Amino acid sequence: MGMDKKKQERKQLKSLYCELRRATKHLIGYTISKGFDYSPLFRFLEFPINNIGDPYSDPSYLRVNTLHVEKMVVDRLAELFHAPKNGYWGYVTNGGTEGNLHGLYVARELYPNGVVFLSDQTHYSAMKNIHLLRMPFVMVKSLSNGEIDYAALQEALEANEKGPPIIFANIGTTMRGAIDDLTQIRSILSHLKIKKYYIHCDAAFYGMILPYVPEGLMKPFDFRAGIDSIAISGHKMIGSPIPCGVSITKKAHIEKIGMPIEYVGIKDTTISGSRNGVTPLFLWHQLIHLGEKRYGPVVRNALTKAEKIVHFFNTRGIPAWKNPCSLTIVLPRPSEPLARKWQLPVQGEQCCMIALPRLPQTDIDRFQKEFVADYKRRNK
Amino acid sequence: MGMDKKKQERKQLKSLYCELRRATKHLIGYTISKGFDYSPLFRFLEFPINNIGDPYSDPSYLRVNTLHVEKMVVDRLAELFHAPKNGYWGYVTNGGTEGNLHGLYVARELYPNGVVFLSDQTHYSAMKNIHLLRMPFVMVKSLSNGEIDYAALQEALEANEKGPPIIFANIGTTMRGAIDDLTQIRSILSHLKIKKYYIHCDAAFYGMILPYVPEGLMKPFDFRAGIDSIAISGHKMIGSPIPCGVSITKKAHIEKIGMPIEYVGIKDTTISGSRNGVTPLFLWHQLIHLGEKRYGPVVRNALTKAEKIVHFFNTRGIPAWKNPCSLTIVLPRPSEPLARKWQLPVQGEQCCMIALPRLPQTDIDRFQKEFVADYKRRNK
Repeated sequence: MGMDKKKQERKQLKSLYCELRRATKHLIGYTISKGFDYSPLFRFLEFPINNIGDPYSDPSYLRVNTLHVEKMVVDRLAELFHAPKNGYWGYVTNGGTEGNLHGLYVARELYPNGVVFLSDQTHYSAMKNIHLLRMPFVMVKSLSNGEIDYAALQEALEANEKGPPIIFANIGTTMRGAIDDLTQIRSILSHLKIKKYYIHCDAAFYGMILPYVPEGLMKPFDFRAGIDSIAISGHKMIGSPIPCGVSITKKAHIEKIGMPIEYVGIKDTTISGSRNGVTPLFLWHQLIHLGEKRYGPVVRNALTKAEKIVHFFNTRGIPAWKNPCSLTIVLPRPSEPLARKWQLPVQGEQCCMIALPRLPQTDIDRFQKEFVADYKRRNK
Repeated sequence: MGMDKKKQERKQLKSLYCELRRATKHLIGYTISKGFDYSPLFRFLEFPINNIGDPYSDPSYLRVNTLHVEKMVVDRLAELFHAPKNGYWGYVTNGGTEGNLHGLYVARELYPNGVVFLSDQTHYSAMKNIHLLRMPFVMVKSLSNGEIDYAALQEALEANEKGPPIIFANIGTTMRGAIDDLTQIRSILSHLKIKKYYIHCDAAFYGMILPYVPEGLMKPFDFRAGIDSIAISGHKMIGSPIPCGVSITKKAHIEKIGMPIEYVGIKDTTISGSRNGVTPLFLWHQLIHLGEKRYGPVVRNALTKAEKIVHFFNTRGIPAWKNPCSLTIVLPRPSEPLARKWQLPVQGEQCCMIALPRLPQTDIDRFQKEFVADYKRRNK
């Protein structure tokens, strides 16, 4: 590589770096945490790490992996989600979408003619996954707060004659941070005497928030609530420069879908095959080394901040609101330039901001000020 | 985090680092390149980069991305694979498996009752993908060198009455480095007067080798050979600490499968949703900045080395062989300890080693010596 090309690359990289730094400063609408520091782990990027296959199978011949770290991450989350001891299976995914795909895939393997029930507030990727898996589905309307409409769900379940229901429950919807009530859902299933069913929780948004919500406030969302699988996202709340997530399933389910293959010397029950071995290190650093002592207070602090933000807007005549246990603040749709500047997802007449863990107060202050000015200008 | 915990983490990380360094030294059987250096790019891991959605759609509100770098990578590969100008679409995937899943998905969308035809030497992930997508398939036997058995393929195509054939062609099989002959496959399709068909190339192994093979030796494998989509792997030949790949498809195909969604303000035609924005930087650094000037000679050097390795073993009475244009050297199955030490994939009575680009000669020398000693001990 000549000097000119080297210089050119340095220049291009510098400009990209500055651009990303600027964009990260105005990141308040997407559930993507910032403010992490993984620099002590960068040296691992020297190696061609490859967490190929099922992390729980006999070790493959390929040893350049971080599978034991990956399993420590899964173990910690399984504990956090009250998975049955020695009765769970999981792996680090490339994000919530892959985790949800995996959950639906497991459900379909158990019930090949199963029908997915999900609310119209579900993240768009669920529909993409259902389409990919060629599964029948029933979309159920939602309540105004974003939860599934339980009466409509009951009707839909009563009308269903195709196969066992596969409930795709939202633990934090994209736009309203709503959490589907698993207690109600299970009592509907029980009322209708439905014995064969599967519950998958899309906990990409709040799987890493709810375990830290003060006892009594938290809605049941984990294995204690009778679920079969759960997917969380790593870059949303925990924070990661690379999208990642964790998928946890009951072990008995996973044992039915293995594919023995001699090439890797293991059974592969994951979606990807060759898998990222760096993101497990990031998650391990956060979950096991920084640990709950740091993370718990950060989450509780974020919940308090979210309440304060709603209060701030309400006292200025702006109809902001949020669901309980939620960091998502629903706001009226702002002007296009403001939505673009602060990277706010919009849907119809609404937009949202997220009081993410570690979001600097200075960012919140600037955003609130600009949002109020924008709102006043448009509602004079 | 207390001092003790910090110390403990440092110790654990040090031990993992040493373990990975050791394992990387004995990595010769899996198609995973080592010897790259991305340290100038590590600072980008400060940011929560997220290449969400289709890289070619209108820019989303989320700006913390490297989508324009990703498109430069796709452009370069599209050029290398002779994709129709302005007539291709692609993205950086999490690896070959996702790229192949995407190719099969596009094929299924075009031909909902299409039938996949693939050889029994195809990587196991193809079957996983086909099962995921609920597609019918026909497995065709292979020739002894690992290519699909063309006569058997013709018979199978003649017998097929279910729907348009979707050819899943291997551009480098896992165990024998075999390349299916697209010229023969297309003449079979033409001979049988099959007008509706789709060809996907799994070029995870040799997509980044064949473009650099001296003119005249190379088998046609790219868009000039009439293919519809191709998937390559980034960590296999190019080298990356994180599994990645690129999927390229004809643009006309992709336009049929978009899902417009307001939330991200874009159409998402990718598998993942939130996508890795760091690996595009790695690929960009290799393909565009180090570029062909460096990479081309490295590949040609690897091909020469592969020939020499076969010769070395043959002159010592070991029946090693390789396919033309291939870096995969097929060897008799060694003892279990040797297979484990050098991380050699085994299948029946065979194993293989790969003369990867940038594989140090010292590694090859040590491996050859140990393999010969092991072979002699077992075949006295």
